[in-house]
Amino acid sequence: MCELLGMSANVPTDICFSFSGFLHRGGGTGPHRDGWGIAFYEAGGYRDFRDPHPSVDSPIARLIRDYPIKSHVVISHIRQANVGQVKLANTHPFTREMWGRPWCYAHNGQLSEAWQELPLSFYQPVGTTDSEHAFCWLMGELRQAFPEPPQDPESLWCHLHRLCEQLRGLGVFNLLLADGEHLYTYCSSKLAHITRRAPFGQASLSDAELNVNFAEHTTPNDVVSVIATEPLTDNEDWVRMEPGELLVWRDGEIQGRFKT
Amino acid sequence: MCELLGMSANVPTDICFSFSGFLHRGGGTGPHRDGWGIAFYEAGGYRDFRDPHPSVDSPIARLIRDYPIKSHVVISHIRQANVGQVKLANTHPFTREMWGRPWCYAHNGQLSEAWQELPLSFYQPVGTTDSEHAFCWLMGELRQAFPEPPQDPESLWCHLHRLCEQLRGLGVFNLLLADGEHLYTYCSSKLAHITRRAPFGQASLSDAELNVNFAEHTTPNDVVSVIATEPLTDNEDWVRMEPGELLVWRDGEIQGRFKT
Repeated sequence: MCELLGMSANVPTDICFSFSGFLHRGGGTGPHRDGWGIAFYEAGGYRDFRDPHPSVDSPIARLIRDYPIKSHVVISHIRQANVGQVKLANTHPFTREMWGRPWCYAHNGQLSEAWQELPLSFYQPVGTTDSEHAFCWLMGELRQAFPEPPQDPESLWCHLHRLCEQLRGLGVFNLLLADGEHLYTYCSSKLAHITRRAPFGQASLSDAELNVNFAEHTTPNDVVSVIATEPLTDNEDWVRMEPGELLVWRDGEIQGRFKT
Repeated sequence: MCELLGMSANVPTDICFSFSGFLHRGGGTGPHRDGWGIAFYEAGGYRDFRDPHPSVDSPIARLIRDYPIKSHVVISHIRQANVGQVKLANTHPFTREMWGRPWCYAHNGQLSEAWQELPLSFYQPVGTTDSEHAFCWLMGELRQAFPEPPQDPESLWCHLHRLCEQLRGLGVFNLLLADGEHLYTYCSSKLAHITRRAPFGQASLSDAELNVNFAEHTTPNDVVSVIATEPLTDNEDWVRMEPGELLVWRDGEIQGRFKT
């Protein structure tokens, strides 16, 4: 299995604190030694950093931890391989362009062999994972249903929820997906979230000896939500998502909620 | 204008030496302060690093210079903006997936306003540059002509040359394009290349005080070709490409040559 980390914020925010804890799970406090990646949507675009080596030893991961990239939406993943060998092409997050937007995706879980029969159209996998195949199928289905961005975004979200439910029918499918504005989080077995807003307090990482007083790094209007496979701090109340639940995040707030 | 740097090699090779000189042109010895990027094809996949800040000041560029990523094919670009503001979405190289392969592209030059009429199909630009629009057009035309990878790669190369000639009709269009196996270099006004093979000698950078004795870092069968807007060393004989010429590189060797 793998672990997921996502962020949605109403102001450009760096994820250095959460990432510090998360990267320890990539071969340090956790067994996820088979690669890691992180994707940032910044005001001016999209970029991702991926490495097929354990995050705890990776010079690129250290750079990300120490070089604050400010972003509205972040998706990160550390991998413990099941389907597909350990190599860069199998390292999440994956990305494809649709409607002139870079869509980004990371998956935690494992699908039954039937994933190989999910029909592909516009998008083809580069690597050999069930995760990327499912992503290409999902994006192809969305693009066939919505050749253009829909006027009514709820119709897209509703369709996305149905597609996620279909994938959950094939096994464990916890998802982070983003289009640069929205972050979509779907829970099949395990995802938790926390929203930080004024009055901000102290947080202390579960996986590393690090504390932060968010009041020193924020303004009163900031809203920052973090979503992770397992809570990253041990002194805050994380909310666990329900199996079959899709949340649509924008600017740190929940904009849509779909359930089985 | 911008500057381009490419590499094709028959063994995984790091580009630290060439990149050391190249990144000095990004705000140091050259005026290209508006961002930079580099893409690597490694045995196991593809990744790129992009930054909208001058390469000479960029911590990510320093990491790339000091962290040898071994690759068969590399494309790099430093930007001096003309069309499109300075932001991440306008930072080369650009990438799109076709046939389950990540295609990567960087452009040096400027097109007349007619670029806006180049019709798009599968691929849409994320940013606002003439370069990315031309890339999306080019990839769409290739995909329409070849829905599947052709049995005969020469037919693809020949079609690509015709499309490049069409873009050269719109202005200055120097191109680096790669599909992970081949590197395609097209010259509209300025591109030079050098192939290094045994017996290897010394090389000395034009833009920084750095010498390397390639004999110490290679084996007798290595073949490494470097392609750049301007020669990067001052003690080797670089070959300048002719306007209208497309070269197809694989494993450091020229596999195809197309002329006007």
